[in-house]
Order: sequence, then C-alpha cells, then structure tokens
Amino acid sequence: QKMKRQDAPVMHDLQISLEEIAKGTTKKMKITRKVIGADGVSRPEDKVISIDIKPGWKAGTKITFPKEGDQLPNKVPADIVFVVKDKPHAMYKREGSDVRYRVKLGLREALVGTTLMIPTLEGNKIPMKLTEVVKPGSVKRIQGQGLPLPKTPSKRGDLLIEFNIQFPDSLSRNAKEILSDTLPRTNYS
Amino acid sequence: QKMKRQDAPVMHDLQISLEEIAKGTTKKMKITRKVIGADGVSRPEDKVISIDIKPGWKAGTKITFPKEGDQLPNKVPADIVFVVKDKPHAMYKREGSDVRYRVKLGLREALVGTTLMIPTLEGNKIPMKLTEVVKPGSVKRIQGQGLPLPKTPSKRGDLLIEFNIQFPDSLSRNAKEILSDTLPRTNYS
Repeated sequence: QKMKRQDAPVMHDLQISLEEIAKGTTKKMKITRKVIGADGVSRPEDKVISIDIKPGWKAGTKITFPKEGDQLPNKVPADIVFVVKDKPHAMYKREGSDVRYRVKLGLREALVGTTLMIPTLEGNKIPMKLTEVVKPGSVKRIQGQGLPLPKTPSKRGDLLIEFNIQFPDSLSRNAKEILSDTLPRTNYS
Repeated sequence: QKMKRQDAPVMHDLQISLEEIAKGTTKKMKITRKVIGADGVSRPEDKVISIDIKPGWKAGTKITFPKEGDQLPNKVPADIVFVVKDKPHAMYKREGSDVRYRVKLGLREALVGTTLMIPTLEGNKIPMKLTEVVKPGSVKRIQGQGLPLPKTPSKRGDLLIEFNIQFPDSLSRNAKEILSDTLPRTNYS
C-alpha cells in the first residue's frame, strides 16, 4: 500500500467575478473521474464538488480536494486543485483589496463641475459631487467600497475613481477665441 | 600551459548618454590591474582602455577586452567586459531606436493651438505647430529625429512627443460660466 504512486495534482482555474469576491460565494463544479466499481472495472462517473469562496480571496488562492482524481489500479488518485482567478470585469480593475473604476468625464464637466453617480460592487450608485477642477489621470478614493480584506473581512478596501477626461474632437473658431480669453495662460517655468 | 585557469570576466557598467548614442563616441576608461614585472613581482599598474561606442548601440551591448585583468602566477588574466547602460536623461526616454519627449502643454494652448519648439538630441529646436485640439496622453511623431538604427546607422528612429496637458488649479465663477456655455456638452454613450 505504501508503494502506491500518486500522479501530480490536476489543476483547474476557477474564474470568480469581483461581485462574487465581494460577497463570497459557493461554486459547484462538476468533475468527471474514473471510479473502480465492485466488479473491479473502472468507469467514468460525474461528481459535483462544492467550493466555498470566502469574501476577499485573492487570485492564486488554491483549494485542494485530496484524492478526487481518477481511480486507477495500483495508484493513489491524484488531488484536484482549484486556483482562484479574477474574472476580467468590464468596469472595474482589482488592485489588491482596492478596486479601480475608470470614469470618462467630459472636459466641460471636469472644469465647471458636475455630480457623477458612481456604481458600486453591490450594484448601488453613490453620488460624487465635483466642484473643483478635475485634472486628467487624477484619482479620488471612496473609502470602504472596495473588496473585503481576506484576513479581516469586516474591513474593506477602497473604490478608486480615476478620471479619463474627454476632450472635444474639434472646436469652432468662435469657441477658440472665447477659450483663449477665458482660460488662464500657462506659466511655463 | 593548457591547465592554467582563467577567472570569470570582470564586468564594468558604462553609462552612455542619449546624445552620445546618437552620434557615437569614444570612451577612455582607466583600469588598474596587477602586472608581473621582469623580477617576477606583481605590481598594480594603470592602463587606459579606449572604447568605441557606435551610433545607436543598445543598452546591454558588451565590449570585451580579452585577458586585461590582473596578471597572477599560474593564471590566465581575466577578460574585462564593459556593458553599455543608458544614462538616465532629464528630458528624453529611450524606446528602442525611438526617443520619447514628454512635453507639458497648458489646457488653453491644447484647445486653441500654439507653436512649440521641440528640442532635438542634436541640440536643435524644431517648431511644431498645433492647430487641432490636443488630447491628454496623445502622441505626435517627428520622423527621423530618434536614434540611429544600430545595424543601419544612416536610418534613424523617431522622436515621439507625448502631451501632458496642464489644467488650471482653479477657475473663477465667471470663467466657469463662460466655459459652461462655450464647451460642448459631452454625449455620454
């Protein structure tokens, strides 16, 4: 019995969305493996494995199910290992426990101010009032609206709002004249 | 004689400025090494090594001077190897045979236009007339003003001009009202 060999673990990627990481979730994965019956014949059998994803888990976290691989004569079934991966998100980018949201903001709104509605991971919208000039690439931080910290899930990272200022493609001659008179001259030092 | 051992090469970094890479240059490096005299005694001796840097050479290029290391009894002197490194530049960043120049441009000038004088690696200034709206992070390319291609030094890479748009820190209430009327409303789609 001691001399039985075990193959290398069977690795599976587990794509988890940021919304799922935020709340935690249970993933049910169907695996197919060979099982040796009472007659000594090995047959493929389906099994559903239930995987508990804790809030805030990082990509790369491994969950191991020992000896759930194919049953073969004279071998210890391999371990099945699931590796958490961040599912790419259309709006957010994960940065550890922070989440970055890149928002397009028109030049007019960046200069004169506006109120943005910022979508959160929970599906809410948080109003963000902009009264100061917003510069390209500048970042504002909404505290506690990021992902739970994996070791203390009662605390959460931040939602980072990065502003991508949209310039007009062109301006009329009249608009240019007014802007030339209105905008401060830059002091190149 | 065949059994004499040789130590690993002695490596020296050679910091070369982008201006030197553009034209090519000769670097004179003083090395100190032990030399065995006629009396069989090993004494330190200075030697000046002349290193020919060809136009367009890439960082990482190695120049080997065989057996120029310390002379020691029963050993083959080590090779001396110089490794070309890009000396960091205050204005330019090398990107292969292209060179990137990051220029600060005021918001007013980005919108209404201006003429910039772009400094080249040769120390000239090339006028660049801006008539269209310049967007943050946009890049213009001046062909043939980069570094020589290492294998065909008669051809040259480009000078890339990246625009870093400087917004005013604040605007008066009056300026905001005028801008609000003048700048196009952004169509968030």
